[in-house]
Amino acid sequence: MELINVTIAGATGYSGEELIRLLMRHPGVDLVCVTSRSHAGGRLEEVFPKFQGHKYSELKFSASETGGIIASGAQIAFLALPHGAAGEFAGPLLEGGVRVIDLSADFRIKDASVYREFYGQEHPAPELLKESVYGMPELYRAELRRAQLVASAGCYPTSIILPLHPLLKGRLIDPASIVVASLSGVSGAGRKVAEEYSYVECNENARPYGVPKHRHLAEIEQELSAAAGERVVINFTPHLIPVTRGILSTIYAMPRPGVEAGKIFEALEAAYGDEIFIRLQGDKGSVELKNVAYSNFLDIAWRHDPRTGRVILMSAEDNLVKGAAGQAMQNMNIMCGWAEATGL
Amino acid sequence: MELINVTIAGATGYSGEELIRLLMRHPGVDLVCVTSRSHAGGRLEEVFPKFQGHKYSELKFSASETGGIIASGAQIAFLALPHGAAGEFAGPLLEGGVRVIDLSADFRIKDASVYREFYGQEHPAPELLKESVYGMPELYRAELRRAQLVASAGCYPTSIILPLHPLLKGRLIDPASIVVASLSGVSGAGRKVAEEYSYVECNENARPYGVPKHRHLAEIEQELSAAAGERVVINFTPHLIPVTRGILSTIYAMPRPGVEAGKIFEALEAAYGDEIFIRLQGDKGSVELKNVAYSNFLDIAWRHDPRTGRVILMSAEDNLVKGAAGQAMQNMNIMCGWAEATGL
Amino acid sequence: MELINVTIAGATGYSGEELIRLLMRHPGVDLVCVTSRSHAGGRLEEVFPKFQGHKYSELKFSASETGGIIASGAQIAFLALPHGAAGEFAGPLLEGGVRVIDLSADFRIKDASVYREFYGQEHPAPELLKESVYGMPELYRAELRRAQLVASAGCYPTSIILPLHPLLKGRLIDPASIVVASLSGVSGAGRKVAEEYSYVECNENARPYGVPKHRHLAEIEQELSAAAGERVVINFTPHLIPVTRGILSTIYAMPRPGVEAGKIFEALEAAYGDEIFIRLQGDKGSVELKNVAYSNFLDIAWRHDPRTGRVILMSAEDNLVKGAAGQAMQNMNIMCGWAEATGL
Amino acid sequence: MELINVTIAGATGYSGEELIRLLMRHPGVDLVCVTSRSHAGGRLEEVFPKFQGHKYSELKFSASETGGIIASGAQIAFLALPHGAAGEFAGPLLEGGVRVIDLSADFRIKDASVYREFYGQEHPAPELLKESVYGMPELYRAELRRAQLVASAGCYPTSIILPLHPLLKGRLIDPASIVVASLSGVSGAGRKVAEEYSYVECNENARPYGVPKHRHLAEIEQELSAAAGERVVINFTPHLIPVTRGILSTIYAMPRPGVEAGKIFEALEAAYGDEIFIRLQGDKGSVELKNVAYSNFLDIAWRHDPRTGRVILMSAEDNLVKGAAGQAMQNMNIMCGWAEATGL
Repeated sequence: MELINVTIAGATGYSGEELIRLLMRHPGVDLVCVTSRSHAGGRLEEVFPKFQGHKYSELKFSASETGGIIASGAQIAFLALPHGAAGEFAGPLLEGGVRVIDLSADFRIKDASVYREFYGQEHPAPELLKESVYGMPELYRAELRRAQLVASAGCYPTSIILPLHPLLKGRLIDPASIVVASLSGVSGAGRKVAEEYSYVECNENARPYGVPKHRHLAEIEQELSAAAGERVVINFTPHLIPVTRGILSTIYAMPRPGVEAGKIFEALEAAYGDEIFIRLQGDKGSVELKNVAYSNFLDIAWRHDPRTGRVILMSAEDNLVKGAAGQAMQNMNIMCGWAEATGL
Repeated sequence: MELINVTIAGATGYSGEELIRLLMRHPGVDLVCVTSRSHAGGRLEEVFPKFQGHKYSELKFSASETGGIIASGAQIAFLALPHGAAGEFAGPLLEGGVRVIDLSADFRIKDASVYREFYGQEHPAPELLKESVYGMPELYRAELRRAQLVASAGCYPTSIILPLHPLLKGRLIDPASIVVASLSGVSGAGRKVAEEYSYVECNENARPYGVPKHRHLAEIEQELSAAAGERVVINFTPHLIPVTRGILSTIYAMPRPGVEAGKIFEALEAAYGDEIFIRLQGDKGSVELKNVAYSNFLDIAWRHDPRTGRVILMSAEDNLVKGAAGQAMQNMNIMCGWAEATGL
Repeated sequence: MELINVTIAGATGYSGEELIRLLMRHPGVDLVCVTSRSHAGGRLEEVFPKFQGHKYSELKFSASETGGIIASGAQIAFLALPHGAAGEFAGPLLEGGVRVIDLSADFRIKDASVYREFYGQEHPAPELLKESVYGMPELYRAELRRAQLVASAGCYPTSIILPLHPLLKGRLIDPASIVVASLSGVSGAGRKVAEEYSYVECNENARPYGVPKHRHLAEIEQELSAAAGERVVINFTPHLIPVTRGILSTIYAMPRPGVEAGKIFEALEAAYGDEIFIRLQGDKGSVELKNVAYSNFLDIAWRHDPRTGRVILMSAEDNLVKGAAGQAMQNMNIMCGWAEATGL
Repeated sequence: MELINVTIAGATGYSGEELIRLLMRHPGVDLVCVTSRSHAGGRLEEVFPKFQGHKYSELKFSASETGGIIASGAQIAFLALPHGAAGEFAGPLLEGGVRVIDLSADFRIKDASVYREFYGQEHPAPELLKESVYGMPELYRAELRRAQLVASAGCYPTSIILPLHPLLKGRLIDPASIVVASLSGVSGAGRKVAEEYSYVECNENARPYGVPKHRHLAEIEQELSAAAGERVVINFTPHLIPVTRGILSTIYAMPRPGVEAGKIFEALEAAYGDEIFIRLQGDKGSVELKNVAYSNFLDIAWRHDPRTGRVILMSAEDNLVKGAAGQAMQNMNIMCGWAEATGL
């Protein structure tokens, strides 16, 4: 395997840190550059003592700017930057011949006006939206192979879009009936220093937030609408729970008239039976955060409730792996023509 | 205030332990007897070292049987026993002139066949179902005053029935549209010793369970149906999260055609604006477990989602207080003609 | 009981918040003023939604300055301010006729040069050191009765000084042999917003800190030296553990030659057997954070190790109650001539 | 690398489960057999859903007996059994030509009478004690190469022996001065189902236990005595804290008269400067559980306290990796002549 030079911009956030952990074990890459606004000049092992004694431990963080990334010889750049900032990095990197895998929301939403609506600011690089590929391997594998700009899918969206996609595509459920409740660990808020994410305020606590119009709805509804062939609008309530890692989603939907629940579950088996990172738990199995922690798996279980007629889909993933860094690396594997599970 | 003699049967479970904590501070009662199958003979402070130096610390657990309770001079007995067992205690106690507040499910479900369906066993005392009063003070205050047998409302049901009751009663929402996701702390499982409730298996974990037909649905749907004047069937998914105390419920419902969301929220204000233990947080406020921990409050917040048309109700309570021991004591206060918040 | 007007300066930190919780239940006081630099103008229930529906919920935070406190008619002021700031408040308040209970370190250390050594700044009011009384009721009860300025004892110090005091006073242990390891919950760090106290960084983590010269040593060694009648210097290592509340201390000491372990334990019984807030667990009993949570108790257990000759003392307290707000209220009860456990 | 057939006896405990996780990634082994008393007949992925989609997921647990292990063609057997049981397995396996790596305490203690004293039962195979090698690679690397029976070192002992060994060997500290306080995560108690390890009882709690004579002292003092060339007896207090993984030890010792602290720290550098799994953090650095989680590292930091004269050593490890399964695999790597970090 010929080594590919990769870089991480914004490597001190939780997604960036997790990417470092995963890339260290990847046999096909050489991590040539990590950038950080706050820690430029520091060695990896100084900023993250846990990385002492590991590969790259002496790598120094450089300033967060595109010139340095290009000069480092990077062939692929992961952007683990806040939204807005990521969008500004992509253009210069692409022009410099660097393929970009963006972990922010900037290139996930195809419509710049929807971006403005949900993120409250103008899109930083609308001209690039057309060429970006949504980085959800199970749905866009073919497009990812040749992609220069990948918008790696978000944490909540991954746990919601994948279970629903085949059901909407097969016209098996009523799009207007979809209701989702998700639980997320605190690392999902990023390495933000705020009282609401302090230990004392999160421990022995739980709360819904972002109700009723969380930003991730833009991305979720875009992909669900594409699957359904019609505009899909859903209810989605995220909840913060006191764990570090993990997202659990419980999804309710009503079968279209005349559709038997069995058909719905067959559609899931047909869509994902061969997927390496989706584990179908069926109508007897269950999903738990502990089963997916530190892995790139998305687990999906389901039930039919004959009393109300609804189907209930339950999914679990590690928000930092399948919901962020692992998925980004899976996208990279596809872009580079490697086995999709390499290093995962 | 003349002291009333009270007893707790099954005082070593989490609800019983919490009742002890609350009754210690109640100015109107004398705790004359606590029973336990496993700790009979032990002093309160031996079984619960935290109660050393408190009132009743030298009280001895007696065997769990009705004769001893009656002989103790108890005027009110709290039954913090497993379902099935509670049902067997009630009759003899009532005959012995003891008013009963049952914290189990046994007398909550009015229809013995529904009990059989959800609990998988014959009801132990169906003849008493008719006289039992559902112990939810906000709905049955008048009946509670003279009740001899109170079925104190359950933890999940309290967090779900109260927000929905005025909406169904006012015919403001479509009963068929109701979907609920609840999160519960681990104390909700009781002091059961099982691997699934061990620290290592619960910490850094979360999971849905009891899908799609959790036992508490019997109780929830009975009360929602009574409010609606028609049979109501809902979806309800409980999730276990790593906290000790607390229940959080997120409830989705569709207004009936022509009903404005504002009307729905007015109904909540009208129903509960004067309730001492319901705190309405409105359409800007939020609910969090930390705000209700160790208190008898139920917090309710709400939102209208103009995109889907649904209303979202969010509630939070301490499952051991408003969801169990606190509510039982609130019921007692009503039964005894005391101010409802006495000791709470 | 005639009501005493009390005020809390700096009422939005964790100690201040806990004081509010405790004072609400105290039958002898009227909380007339709470101050806050950051939340002046806000109502108590806005800043702390958990206090909705409680006494004082509509009390407004005023600016943090002494004039307003005096003008409020306060007879007693609790200072829950950072060290340095507290020292500046005390003088004007005392001159204004307000008795002061300071929860900071400012008046605990009698020697201004030791304060400078450990806190790295000049003492803000050295002239007041002489009249301040160390607020540890079990040791200074008589002095507290008439005190105008009380330096309420610190969290770690309470858990360490109380177990060792009678042993040093009785010349039963070798002062040079004392070694202490303490574990503290994260609320001990205060409501500081810093990455190291974020949920993700504290959860599933533990670490020693402040080694070898933590600030609380100044206070601990001052009191141990007073007990021993000679200068005592010890080793003390605090550890941060992932709980919200609680301090656990494990203390090692070598009996002086010829002293039997039994004598040591008798000294503890003699010193504290009648203390209402010290619970002696003996040489069979144990201490656990869960037993003291939300209470004003300090639990002490002990062992003798015949293999090494050392005695091991173990203590547990709630750092926010006996280690801060509860102890401050206990001090107030003594100052006002009330039963010491009033409201606790 | 030629594949070696390995087996795990007692693979459903936490150490066994962790061994499975680590062996899956080891390029030199084939896991041919896993045994379990309670889950014989079950597939790996059924017992541990997290292992679905992984190597060996369809491997079936067989009954826990030596004949089956030998018949499986195993060349190396890991014993993750309770003490007592492990001792009975070793003999037959060795006779059957299987090299044994025991994770229990059975072969760690060289003196059968000490085993009886600390474990309260006769040693099950005293005749094998002589040939067993203590599985602490940093101290017994040479002996491990040819060992047939390895007693992989325990979790607490690893965190305590390694920091102290060079200091005692160099006669730099007074053996009688050693005092240790350790904190352990709940997985250290094993997959025991007991109320004291339930979520509700461990969460928001911490407690010392096994004071003053915890079983691990036998192993710790044996190795410290060997290092010192004289009998060493210490104080050691373990504490249970609410984390799943990790052990933190804080160790106090007094330098021998005339020994400067600098010499002590040089001895640590000299002993471990080249060790791949010991990371020396020096007198400025710190240790935290989060830095060693899921890794085979032991971190050591130190301080000198000029006030008392003592040195303080602090160490951190993952109790399931360096404290159990990782160390066992490190031992295997040495026994097989592989690079010591293979698979770790």
